Amino acid sequence: MADCPVARSVDAVGDWWSLLIVRDAFDGSRRFGEFQRSLGVAKNILSARLKALTDNGILELAPAGAHNEYVLTAKGEALFPVIVALRQWGEAFSFAPGEPHSKLLDRRNGKPLKPLEIHAADGRRLTPADTEVHKLS
Amino acid sequence: MADCPVARSVDAVGDWWSLLIVRDAFDGSRRFGEFQRSLGVAKNILSARLKALTDNGILELAPAGAHNEYVLTAKGEALFPVIVALRQWGEAFSFAPGEPHSKLLDRRNGKPLKPLEIHAADGRRLTPADTEVHKLS
Repeated sequence: MADCPVARSVDAVGDWWSLLIVRDAFDGSRRFGEFQRSLGVAKNILSARLKALTDNGILELAPAGAHNEYVLTAKGEALFPVIVALRQWGEAFSFAPGEPHSKLLDRRNGKPLKPLEIHAADGRRLTPADTEVHKLS
Repeated sequence: MADCPVARSVDAVGDWWSLLIVRDAFDGSRRFGEFQRSLGVAKNILSARLKALTDNGILELAPAGAHNEYVLTAKGEALFPVIVALRQWGEAFSFAPGEPHSKLLDRRNGKPLKPLEIHAADGRRLTPADTEVHKLS
């Protein structure tokens, strides 16, 4: 197993594509059909990805009438900063000026969120150059 | 093209695996051989991933003596919150208590960074439930 937490996270989520399932779960999708409509993928592929996310403790199955629903676990909810970071990066670099895109908004006032910032333990704002990785070997 | 910035980011990075190249670039890797030693992958696969990251404006080639070096562009540097978010999630959920792992530290004092937080434009701390996605259609 990798000793780098980034690598383990990559393993745990499974693949990039699965992150869009997690995004949809944050957006309120719970049923197989909802994920399928949003993602437009083959049922067998979606089933496999949902199973992997469930096996890895990111989603859990909740009985709901005749259907099962998929809900984020605490571990899954903790992926929120990953989704927000990818969203803000996409907004900054993958759209032309004025090109419309979906938006993540503050429910209280409908405003976009504050851009993510990296801070030191004492609150100083950090750039990548202010940090260093300590590897085990 | 997707109208969701998360989906466009996923497209732009290419795949999960490519994110480990970006991580290594933040950690100081610049040469093909450095990425290869760190990642332990076949040369042709690494070449294709480096080319895709360069084509997508995340890395750029910089001549350095007899070799080319790969350096993060501004767009690539802006992936730092994504890497930090994945690292912190991995630290929280993918290691046993006390299990050693690589660490991202503040150069000034050697301390771990502050955990990422999601804030509203006015500074309030937000949970996923405090937010909502506005889709275009």
